Amino acid sequence: MLSFIILLGFATFARIQNFSLLLQKKIMIHQDSIVALATPSGAGAIAVIRISGHDAIAIGSSVFQSVKGKDLNIQKSHTLHLGHIVDGNVTLDEVLVSLFKGPNSYTGENTIEISCHGSTYIQQQIIQLLLRKGCRMAQPGEFTLRAFLNGKLDLSQAEAVADLIASDNEASHQIAMQQMRGGFSNEIAQLRQELLNFASLIELELDFAEEDVEFADRTQFYELLNRIEFVLKRLIDSFAVGNVIKNGIPVAIVGEPNVGKSTLLNALLNEERAIVSDIAGTTRDTIEDELVINGIGFRFIDTAGIRETVDVVESLGIRKTFEKMEQAQVVVYLIDNGQLASLDSASPRVIIDNALAQVKIEIEKIKNQFPLKPLVIIGNKSDKLNAGQTAVIRYEIPGILLISAKENIGIEDLKNQLISFVDTGALRNNETIVTNARHYDSLLKALEEIQKVQYGLKTGLSSDLMAIDIREALYHFGSITGEVTNDELLGNIFANFCIGK
Amino acid sequence: MLSFIILLGFATFARIQNFSLLLQKKIMIHQDSIVALATPSGAGAIAVIRISGHDAIAIGSSVFQSVKGKDLNIQKSHTLHLGHIVDGNVTLDEVLVSLFKGPNSYTGENTIEISCHGSTYIQQQIIQLLLRKGCRMAQPGEFTLRAFLNGKLDLSQAEAVADLIASDNEASHQIAMQQMRGGFSNEIAQLRQELLNFASLIELELDFAEEDVEFADRTQFYELLNRIEFVLKRLIDSFAVGNVIKNGIPVAIVGEPNVGKSTLLNALLNEERAIVSDIAGTTRDTIEDELVINGIGFRFIDTAGIRETVDVVESLGIRKTFEKMEQAQVVVYLIDNGQLASLDSASPRVIIDNALAQVKIEIEKIKNQFPLKPLVIIGNKSDKLNAGQTAVIRYEIPGILLISAKENIGIEDLKNQLISFVDTGALRNNETIVTNARHYDSLLKALEEIQKVQYGLKTGLSSDLMAIDIREALYHFGSITGEVTNDELLGNIFANFCIGK
Repeated sequence: MLSFIILLGFATFARIQNFSLLLQKKIMIHQDSIVALATPSGAGAIAVIRISGHDAIAIGSSVFQSVKGKDLNIQKSHTLHLGHIVDGNVTLDEVLVSLFKGPNSYTGENTIEISCHGSTYIQQQIIQLLLRKGCRMAQPGEFTLRAFLNGKLDLSQAEAVADLIASDNEASHQIAMQQMRGGFSNEIAQLRQELLNFASLIELELDFAEEDVEFADRTQFYELLNRIEFVLKRLIDSFAVGNVIKNGIPVAIVGEPNVGKSTLLNALLNEERAIVSDIAGTTRDTIEDELVINGIGFRFIDTAGIRETVDVVESLGIRKTFEKMEQAQVVVYLIDNGQLASLDSASPRVIIDNALAQVKIEIEKIKNQFPLKPLVIIGNKSDKLNAGQTAVIRYEIPGILLISAKENIGIEDLKNQLISFVDTGALRNNETIVTNARHYDSLLKALEEIQKVQYGLKTGLSSDLMAIDIREALYHFGSITGEVTNDELLGNIFANFCIGK
Repeated sequence: MLSFIILLGFATFARIQNFSLLLQKKIMIHQDSIVALATPSGAGAIAVIRISGHDAIAIGSSVFQSVKGKDLNIQKSHTLHLGHIVDGNVTLDEVLVSLFKGPNSYTGENTIEISCHGSTYIQQQIIQLLLRKGCRMAQPGEFTLRAFLNGKLDLSQAEAVADLIASDNEASHQIAMQQMRGGFSNEIAQLRQELLNFASLIELELDFAEEDVEFADRTQFYELLNRIEFVLKRLIDSFAVGNVIKNGIPVAIVGEPNVGKSTLLNALLNEERAIVSDIAGTTRDTIEDELVINGIGFRFIDTAGIRETVDVVESLGIRKTFEKMEQAQVVVYLIDNGQLASLDSASPRVIIDNALAQVKIEIEKIKNQFPLKPLVIIGNKSDKLNAGQTAVIRYEIPGILLISAKENIGIEDLKNQLISFVDTGALRNNETIVTNARHYDSLLKALEEIQKVQYGLKTGLSSDLMAIDIREALYHFGSITGEVTNDELLGNIFANFCIGK
């Protein structure tokens, strides 16, 4: 079982000063030694097995024979040792052992990492041996949990570790990296400290309630609250783009099956694929319908067309298409220019109307249903149009993007149009961006409390009532960085980690 | 391009003394720096990127910022350094760098290993950065090739590295481990040295051909040749079991589709699966029809039955079944005891004969076709038989193994029977076992030459003719350990490695 440190819940009525003291008090508990495979499972050149805990070095030493006869127990931290892992008389593998002495390790505890040959058989044998020698299997994220409990990372930094590992494009990687290096936490922690200072003074006033003194300068406090409100609003706003960066932008492609959707996706994916296959051995599993443009992920949702029909089954299909458009942030409507082959600029009005009637109806329907949703209308197979037909369709369907997925014409324009829907201003300006729904939630709640305090200040609310709102705001700040936390919260956060991290 | 060292081919007529001198001369050449992912591809807690070459540390240093401000170029070998990989202003990841100075590294060259977070995106970014900084992607097995060229491993040890990574059971793992630690090479190298000493003396005699002197003591030489012959024969014999251990034993299961084959396989695999799932994170892809019993791999080949038929299509199926039995080393014939449900020990002869006629015909057919191939006859669903029926079938089909795959009855007996077909004596006695077909081939050729020399010695062949046979024997010995080699051979061997090893 994990031994979590339970810090004070928000409902406590302890004074903030005491609360703060308790927070600063590190409760060091004896940690058993945990072991896990840290590298991806499967066969490779090498695999790394990680052990952390008070006895990690002693346990490692008990199964390790250095080629130079060294005793791991008396080696310096941050050193590497060549030798063999032995199980009684049986040599399991020739390995390199990395040795870290707490607190100078990832977890803050004694840690060793065993680089062994990458056969799954060897990995299993070594881990089983270590289990017999007194380690236990690590829970998901337990190494990082220990790093958090030992004060090596705050909670939002720990969460960034998981984000970093999951990041598969430039933008999400950069944000996770920034958060892991503390950019986000620092800002929150600093505001929290300032608020805490004021809160202490206001709590102090409660002790002198009869004397009606004001230790906390109300003008400065008002100014601080405004500053906090400003920062909170900016961070909350950043979540829209943060969410997009982390989860990608869902794009619904509306179009009949033979209109060229998969050719279009392939054309879009082409460049990306070339990059990936450049580096043998790092090829990742491509999710067919997900692609990254300028570091932003787009997820394409395939839908059927929305042609009018009397068929009940097809009507169901159309309802589904509309549901998918509802979920998407961008709609791409793809038409096949082939149906315009009989047209030219001298065609009689009735023929033009006829050829485009269905398309226009469908476009109108989408616009009526989702008036605010960005819509890209694409005419595919445009290489088959002559100049006259091109002129007609540009005139009849304003804003249409004429492309040829097969001939790779207009693909860059489409990419630019898609990326133009994302406000990447914050990203470009290197601002702090919130990507984590839990943080977003805490920020919203903190803002709510801050606004209550602002209102209280304006309306001359009594110090003791205002103190309650301030405490709640502090609680929500603290829950982001992990200064206030509990079993359940930590359990939820670290359960999403992979084992070995 | 790889720069291979080409050592002397066997056809040379240079004197053996010169030959030996050339072999001992290490040709050190400048090696460019190679980079590859050393851990399995995919996302995990961490990934390791390996760089080796003259400039490895300098290149690593150019993209690494130590948190303690250390310069990698002036750090000691076998040390670990925490810091960031930076690409200009962009921080790619927080990493740990392991530093090894040549010749004290795996390859014998300067080497660094970067432990980064295990996202495929980060892996790609770091590798791309290193490529831009002057590394090139490593070829499969190139790190181990360099270790061989720099004298850190001999060729058979290098080959054992690939075997070790591929090993998926105890026996193949132990043999690869033994070979990697030099057990096999040492034996060969020592015999080769003794033979070389005699060869030198005989070559010397050629210089004094007119004087008809004998520097090499013919009695001692005769004794040495016998000893070499004995060792070679033992190693050659060991290949039979070595091959079994490395590649597993093909077992053909003959039986109709509904006879319980997959239930049987599941029952056999059960224990194995439990072991694997004990260790989360190391679960390997199970090959459904391969299983390990007492450290020996068995590969099950599913075949149709061989029931008599007039149908042409089914006749083709029967021919295929016989082809598969031909390839297998063991045949398991599975029957469903359900067809005996109407029998008991008091049944009239004609009814017993009738019920078992088809089965007996099929067994006879297999025995006639493959008189020397081990055959296991299994009666499945034996839990449905009463005592009388059991007695009848045991009497009528001597040696039948009565099991119930579903109820897990008799599975251990089957395992014991399968394992009894493998002569694991050599394995138990910790003898050297040859598993590599290339080594086996070289040993066979060496034996042939040694026997020619033995014959020459008996028949008083002239020294100069005998010297040719000895040279050829030495060549074959040398090709095992890599003292004699060429581009093509090395290319073949290392192309089978994974990238990053």
